[in-house]
Amino acid sequence: MSFKELFYPRSVAVAGSVSEGKLGYFLIKQLLEGGFEKVYALNPKGQGALSVPGFRSAGEIGEELDLVVIASPAFTVKEVLEDCGKNGVKDAVIISAGFSEIGNVEGEKELLRIAKKYSLRFVGPNCAGIVNTSHKLFATLETRPPSGCTAFISQSGALGGAVLSWAEEQGLGFSKFVSYGNGADIDDLELLDYLREDPETRVVALYLESARRGRKLLEAMRKVSQRKPLVVIKSGKSQAGQRATLSHTGSMAGSDEVFDAAIKETGAIRVEGIEEMFDLCKGFSTLPSVKGKRVFIVTNSGGPGVLTADKAEELGLEVSEPTPPLKEKLGQILSERCSLKNPVDLTVEGTEENFRRSLILGLTETGEFPGYDAAIAINVGTPFLDSVALARGIVDAFRETGKPILASFLAGKTVEEGVRFLKQNGIPNFLTGERAIKVIYWMSEYEARKAKIKEPLPPPEPKRKGISWKFPELEPEVFQFLKENSLPVPEFRFARDEEEVSEAAEEIGYPVVMKVVSPDVIHKSDLGGVILNIRDQAGAQDSFRRLKEVAAGMRFLGVTLFPMIHPLHEALVGIYRDPQFGPVVAFGLGGIFTEIVRDLSLKLAPLDREDAFSLVEGTKLSQILRGARGQKPCDLESLIDLLIKVSLMPFLYPEIEEMDLNPVFLLEKGVLIGDARIIKKRGGNHEPD
Amino acid sequence: MSFKELFYPRSVAVAGSVSEGKLGYFLIKQLLEGGFEKVYALNPKGQGALSVPGFRSAGEIGEELDLVVIASPAFTVKEVLEDCGKNGVKDAVIISAGFSEIGNVEGEKELLRIAKKYSLRFVGPNCAGIVNTSHKLFATLETRPPSGCTAFISQSGALGGAVLSWAEEQGLGFSKFVSYGNGADIDDLELLDYLREDPETRVVALYLESARRGRKLLEAMRKVSQRKPLVVIKSGKSQAGQRATLSHTGSMAGSDEVFDAAIKETGAIRVEGIEEMFDLCKGFSTLPSVKGKRVFIVTNSGGPGVLTADKAEELGLEVSEPTPPLKEKLGQILSERCSLKNPVDLTVEGTEENFRRSLILGLTETGEFPGYDAAIAINVGTPFLDSVALARGIVDAFRETGKPILASFLAGKTVEEGVRFLKQNGIPNFLTGERAIKVIYWMSEYEARKAKIKEPLPPPEPKRKGISWKFPELEPEVFQFLKENSLPVPEFRFARDEEEVSEAAEEIGYPVVMKVVSPDVIHKSDLGGVILNIRDQAGAQDSFRRLKEVAAGMRFLGVTLFPMIHPLHEALVGIYRDPQFGPVVAFGLGGIFTEIVRDLSLKLAPLDREDAFSLVEGTKLSQILRGARGQKPCDLESLIDLLIKVSLMPFLYPEIEEMDLNPVFLLEKGVLIGDARIIKKRGGNHEPD
Repeated sequence: MSFKELFYPRSVAVAGSVSEGKLGYFLIKQLLEGGFEKVYALNPKGQGALSVPGFRSAGEIGEELDLVVIASPAFTVKEVLEDCGKNGVKDAVIISAGFSEIGNVEGEKELLRIAKKYSLRFVGPNCAGIVNTSHKLFATLETRPPSGCTAFISQSGALGGAVLSWAEEQGLGFSKFVSYGNGADIDDLELLDYLREDPETRVVALYLESARRGRKLLEAMRKVSQRKPLVVIKSGKSQAGQRATLSHTGSMAGSDEVFDAAIKETGAIRVEGIEEMFDLCKGFSTLPSVKGKRVFIVTNSGGPGVLTADKAEELGLEVSEPTPPLKEKLGQILSERCSLKNPVDLTVEGTEENFRRSLILGLTETGEFPGYDAAIAINVGTPFLDSVALARGIVDAFRETGKPILASFLAGKTVEEGVRFLKQNGIPNFLTGERAIKVIYWMSEYEARKAKIKEPLPPPEPKRKGISWKFPELEPEVFQFLKENSLPVPEFRFARDEEEVSEAAEEIGYPVVMKVVSPDVIHKSDLGGVILNIRDQAGAQDSFRRLKEVAAGMRFLGVTLFPMIHPLHEALVGIYRDPQFGPVVAFGLGGIFTEIVRDLSLKLAPLDREDAFSLVEGTKLSQILRGARGQKPCDLESLIDLLIKVSLMPFLYPEIEEMDLNPVFLLEKGVLIGDARIIKKRGGNHEPD
Repeated sequence: MSFKELFYPRSVAVAGSVSEGKLGYFLIKQLLEGGFEKVYALNPKGQGALSVPGFRSAGEIGEELDLVVIASPAFTVKEVLEDCGKNGVKDAVIISAGFSEIGNVEGEKELLRIAKKYSLRFVGPNCAGIVNTSHKLFATLETRPPSGCTAFISQSGALGGAVLSWAEEQGLGFSKFVSYGNGADIDDLELLDYLREDPETRVVALYLESARRGRKLLEAMRKVSQRKPLVVIKSGKSQAGQRATLSHTGSMAGSDEVFDAAIKETGAIRVEGIEEMFDLCKGFSTLPSVKGKRVFIVTNSGGPGVLTADKAEELGLEVSEPTPPLKEKLGQILSERCSLKNPVDLTVEGTEENFRRSLILGLTETGEFPGYDAAIAINVGTPFLDSVALARGIVDAFRETGKPILASFLAGKTVEEGVRFLKQNGIPNFLTGERAIKVIYWMSEYEARKAKIKEPLPPPEPKRKGISWKFPELEPEVFQFLKENSLPVPEFRFARDEEEVSEAAEEIGYPVVMKVVSPDVIHKSDLGGVILNIRDQAGAQDSFRRLKEVAAGMRFLGVTLFPMIHPLHEALVGIYRDPQFGPVVAFGLGGIFTEIVRDLSLKLAPLDREDAFSLVEGTKLSQILRGARGQKPCDLESLIDLLIKVSLMPFLYPEIEEMDLNPVFLLEKGVLIGDARIIKKRGGNHEPD
């Protein structure tokens, strides 16, 4: 993907009315004011505007036209595209709205057909345009942003525009900007691929409203993250959970939770909103990478220092005290009034030299201590402090150590000049220390995630392709099916009468558990269809009769018998299909407590050992498995085996929509499935129901 | 408390050197530039500065002097105070540092002695001064803030100063500002009392680094909240948990968690940092109160609308769809392209009239729907939209409905004029819709908390005052003590030999539980000192012998026997003394799972029924008690009884430092204490050890 003509056109035509006050007029004005020279107007009258000549057709321009920006009414767009295609235009940006977003799917398809015919590629329709600051290309109605090295892709035109308007104030510059609108042709996936390679872009920011083509999107994100940081905003969390699922485990996780779980493995960073995105892009675009979690805070005021340390601890960063040798060195350069803990409090008397020297000391090796990974310098200005001098000390330390230093100069006019000096010298300033901490957190998190990025496992081929088989529905069938697939089930027997019951119970060994088998009984426990801890033959006979009664008036096929198991803990394991991302494995520990606390961990299937392990680690309760708080440790290896096998099931059996294993008994040695439900895909069973 | 001379002095003297470049000089300059007229200089040379005359003593001024602002070196402050006191000065602001904050406790005490002698009251020392904008009094070295109706009290001078510098940019004005520094005389409690009554103050903001005099501070907060909103920042979260506690439950809760739990009941709002404080003060100081949780979002751009709705849902606000009659009305005034759900999306074509009419419709009664409780109007500006016109529509709706409307105009210069117009007309603008939502959340939360504020229960008088008694230490003593205090314990027996064991087990009834009794065995379970489910006499005899072996080499006093109990669930209940806030009750549900998830709820003791109920409700798992997810409901009333009784114990027995009841068995009928530990206050036992 080169997109050369799209981002670096030699000439641009604006299609649409260029009368004063019309969109075409403003687009031309914008292009010219932005510094682009070869601009033409294209409209039925051949009308020009400002200094720009007008033509009726791209063919009339008499020079190779690379890009056309279309802002004419929806019904005219196809003609414009046809004309441009015919005359060798390579790319178009279709700003005009009135296509699939209002239900005009056919009109949008037609644009695509025309484009394909001429090998023309286009952005839009229904978009806010594109920007390439290095080429002085501002093909948009939005505010022209300052140039920089962040590329921003936005699914929403308006939000994209707002970000551009805000950029100057926030101190962030852009390399490229694309509002891709309906994404009929060029979409987020291709743009991510392109920006990954773009040498003018150091950070990519992406605003998404929907995660279409889920796994492909994740792949594109992963590839970007391997090269440069990718910051993502995705709205629509509150729609989470609206998806209808049949299985219990599936119903606990919404699509947004799946996205949240999946994005971490791509190396991308999901932020909450625009402010956090700006902060993060400022950090990523100017600072060296943050290699670890140790943060050094130097402040001239106690309060903001403590608030900053609080936030750091909340996020899991380390604000450790200086080692004794480091403390000694700090003591030599700082006055007795200073606190030498971390935060180092220079007090209001802290000088330029104090900032310079203590930052350098904290960030460099001292004895066995390799130096903190990043530092925050906080200056709470007063009208009587020279903020530029303090900034100079900080900038010097940054130059000398080459390590990331972030600043938080508070506030307003008192520190205005200091902030400007910092920015000129590559140190980003944040409104509060807490915000700077969040940036350090995400920067270190990016490095950690990047180191772990790996290709997803290829899914296995389906078993019994095209061969019809009986989908397991009744409990004995389900357990038989699990057993055939090497999933750990306890001994079980199906018994249809009292004689078979006695025999089965003997074979399993008392005490046993007995469950009713009937296609009409779905919630066995609620109906009294499960009897635990049956101790002898008399009990077994009695239980059989009781279960027969439970099914009175319904089809009673018999009972299943299991051994009575006393697990160390119970887990729930589920697999279900997310509409955007496909098969997802869910894991939770601790039965009912977990369900209420929603301590559920999710991962896209299939899983390898490492994935399965980190799926388990993703729950808060996982420490129990390793024997926290005096508990006996469970057999983690067997659990991992189970999770891996479960993760393959929807690929091996495309007929399976969802599977719920709840509870899974965790033992000192091994794991056993206590109860299972398998839900068939609609129309997925090759045999008639 | 009038503080009349402090905040409304007729005249002010500045004590300290007034040579150019010295603090006294800057203070005089500030006072004059702020518009205060009667200013004098006070220093050994009687030197004046700027237009201000200088004197050697307050007595020389020859006019009644109300306030002195002292910025002279620490060692001279007492003389200045003495001179001022002698000459009838009523108040002082001591900016000079060098007292208790650097260990000079004696020097600070002396200031207090002098002040008491002359009935003079003072702020400081080691503070950044005071401001009263309505009186044009700027007795501070910090930036002069714009006037408004927020009062700000800061323990940190530097942070207070930063807030003042930031105020203009953030669009917030102040009525009063006090940096109280070491708070040697006038402190946060008195200032809160004063500001509660101050007619110029609509909102009080407080920055705290430590919560000294915990319960008194809470009382002062409660009284403010009954009258007006109180917004609190408290730093020092990360110090949570540093406090040494002996009991298990106590060790799970830090002082900061206690503060967090306690502050909610005072009606005050604790925010995370300065930005949130500004946002909240802006909302509280200009808007009518938010009476409920239903929010209406009107936007001209989909993306920011969804991000705003996401945040609202996260915070538990309701973003419900308009009722059918309301939707019909909206449909009549809006074009077909608009989404009539909530957020109402006017699209980029949304007009002034669209904003005006849809906001009015959403906030007013329609049929049975009483109208939303608050609205957010989002305008994502483009260079081609008239932001003032949209602002006018919003302002009109605000005037017509009288209900809270918040704006989020994005971003920068495109919306600058619109934002100004909004502000002039009492509508606060926020950088993002998410921030506006947070303000609505807190404003509605304030109303909800205010409605529930109540006086704390008076603590009960100690039992056996002055009478010496044996503090319960061994398990049988502890259970006997709990029983005597009407706490629900199971049957229990102490047995010293095999004969007593048989008898005791018979009396209790098999199966029984047996535990070793030895002053040398602290962690019984870990050593195998607890045997469960003993079924018969042979088992009991065998268990006794085993427990004797467990205590081999230690003092073995015998065993305790209990019935074997199968609870529905287990809880942990603890009471301990927080150094700042005194006795605190902790409650958690679910045993080991809860401990790991830290689903612990805290409340200051003593508790009444309502308190105990809300303590239980404060845990996520509490729904289990009422029978969530097919569980049998527990006996909530008995649990409440237990909690109330436990909450009285540290008052009834001042010798008790902490008590741990873990587990407490929750049954279908009743609750029973399964294990208990009581820790003695050091020196609190009247008998020798």
